[in-house]
Amino acid sequence: MVIPLILTGFGNVGKAFVRLLAEKHEDCRSRYGLDFDLVAVVRKTGAWMANKEGEFFNLAAPAAEPLESRPGWFPGMSLSEVLVRARRRGALVECTSSNWQTGEPQLEFLHAALNLGWHVAAASKGGLIVDFKNLQAKARSKKLSLKFSGATAAALPTLDVATVSLAGAKILGFEGILTGTTNYILSRLEQGLSFEAALKEAQAKGIAEMDPSMDIDGWDTACKVILIANAAAGTDFTINDVNVEGIRVVTSGALADARASGNSLKLLGRLFEEGGRYRAEVKVMPVPPSHPLFRLTGTSKGIVFRTDTMGTVAVTDGKSDPRGTAAAVLKDVINIFRDR
Amino acid sequence: MVIPLILTGFGNVGKAFVRLLAEKHEDCRSRYGLDFDLVAVVRKTGAWMANKEGEFFNLAAPAAEPLESRPGWFPGMSLSEVLVRARRRGALVECTSSNWQTGEPQLEFLHAALNLGWHVAAASKGGLIVDFKNLQAKARSKKLSLKFSGATAAALPTLDVATVSLAGAKILGFEGILTGTTNYILSRLEQGLSFEAALKEAQAKGIAEMDPSMDIDGWDTACKVILIANAAAGTDFTINDVNVEGIRVVTSGALADARASGNSLKLLGRLFEEGGRYRAEVKVMPVPPSHPLFRLTGTSKGIVFRTDTMGTVAVTDGKSDPRGTAAAVLKDVINIFRDR
Repeated sequence: MVIPLILTGFGNVGKAFVRLLAEKHEDCRSRYGLDFDLVAVVRKTGAWMANKEGEFFNLAAPAAEPLESRPGWFPGMSLSEVLVRARRRGALVECTSSNWQTGEPQLEFLHAALNLGWHVAAASKGGLIVDFKNLQAKARSKKLSLKFSGATAAALPTLDVATVSLAGAKILGFEGILTGTTNYILSRLEQGLSFEAALKEAQAKGIAEMDPSMDIDGWDTACKVILIANAAAGTDFTINDVNVEGIRVVTSGALADARASGNSLKLLGRLFEEGGRYRAEVKVMPVPPSHPLFRLTGTSKGIVFRTDTMGTVAVTDGKSDPRGTAAAVLKDVINIFRDR
Repeated sequence: MVIPLILTGFGNVGKAFVRLLAEKHEDCRSRYGLDFDLVAVVRKTGAWMANKEGEFFNLAAPAAEPLESRPGWFPGMSLSEVLVRARRRGALVECTSSNWQTGEPQLEFLHAALNLGWHVAAASKGGLIVDFKNLQAKARSKKLSLKFSGATAAALPTLDVATVSLAGAKILGFEGILTGTTNYILSRLEQGLSFEAALKEAQAKGIAEMDPSMDIDGWDTACKVILIANAAAGTDFTINDVNVEGIRVVTSGALADARASGNSLKLLGRLFEEGGRYRAEVKVMPVPPSHPLFRLTGTSKGIVFRTDTMGTVAVTDGKSDPRGTAAAVLKDVINIFRDR
């Protein structure tokens, strides 16, 4: 049976997802019995709708013409209109870049999809940060899956490990290097570069954004802490519940102290218990060589969960480019449908 | 709705599972909506059957009387007889210690359970090593789950990560420290102990068995490599397909070489591609400090997967005592039923 997918967003991650779906289409069919068909792509300016099964393969071709000039492009068409026209329900693949303070456009897209009985696999964070509890409650009441591995450190499987691999255990806390950009800059600071030089280099390599404050002031890590904590520990955190410190505070003295004691400075996103309650923070901390995250330099990421019954479980590395994020989204889509 | 569980084996892991189930019973109900009831425990000598719901809580009490002298004990009763008497189907929790060459008693138990429509969560390896393809085919044809996290490195989530977190990716290979005993002895050899002294110490601490050859000759690791490869990479390996080397081969020269180059010797269970085919081996290899497994000393375990789309993903640590294994089994049981 063909399973329809609708993609929102057609930037780097969205395009990588289309290419990956084309590449893995046959594999999904033979390994999992899942025949995915991308039936529509929705952008701000309108929507492309496939005329026939498998037409999305054309979108995956390199140097293809823009979506807007293809047959099947409907200017101004919204996700809701696309959803209403779909003959069968499937999953929304949400790859827009959404605002983490308003949640839009993701927030509207997720509610629209869930309202009409579509599962969700999301790669961006905005709507989930702003309104997770409502989205989760809506998905549960309709027995729909709401997955967002791609939004919580790309191919590093933070969410699966927390919710599947540690099922039944209580999460006592976690600490993670969840933003590649900040870890890259910290690694370069430890190698002697100035903050400005390290940032400039990261921007030149496409690792840091031209407006880098979301990453270097800790907000990207904070958003991921919120998503992982809410999904894994049942908290109800929003951005105001996290004490956030970025990497601008790192002094040469702190770097020298860490070096002298054999430690490495990392920007950690942390969940911990204090006075019987969960607390979350983002903070630069020295990490000793015995720690599972010590080894992670450059854009590498990782997370360490502490549990009551399974001890400590660390998961590290994983590709963090658009293809890695697309692979995380495809993983979610497969896991949504494989057992149904 | 009450979900019946039947336990086979009542050794360290089986007992730990009963205690954990009692401890987590309410939590499973509130977090996952799953109301587990252990309705029977089967041993070689017979079976205990609960008379009423929740009676298993009595088995979890410390210093309880032996199973064989309790009301509800039926000498000579077999698993098949217990399964036939069950009023509703659930999951078999297989915690015997099974022979990895004959597969028994696990092999018989798994087939009996699957034949009668019961899901399986296994903590031992024998039957799975000997007859995985048939067991998997039987489970699939009946839409039953066949899980064995507890058999593949206890609380270290090797199988979940391979099959759930890396869904859709091709496993290009993996390498893991999968046996705590051998890693402990290697750590002590690196600290200057003789092989005999290190082994004796591990035995005194209960880390190594009195007959340690299963572990130190690499067979335990080989069995885990087979299970993980067959489940994650679709191979059809049995024990004859693995080149197995244990840690008795480690010379003082190899230890000195590793130390001089800053590496650490680890017994690795490996899957890799060669000539377009998967190969498996168990081998002592030097691991450099940049490697995710370098840090793992003592009884710590870990595995590194290499994939086509998600890069490298490493998962390390996890409790490896009977309680950790029991937690892995409970995790499987939860994941079997949470989405049904």
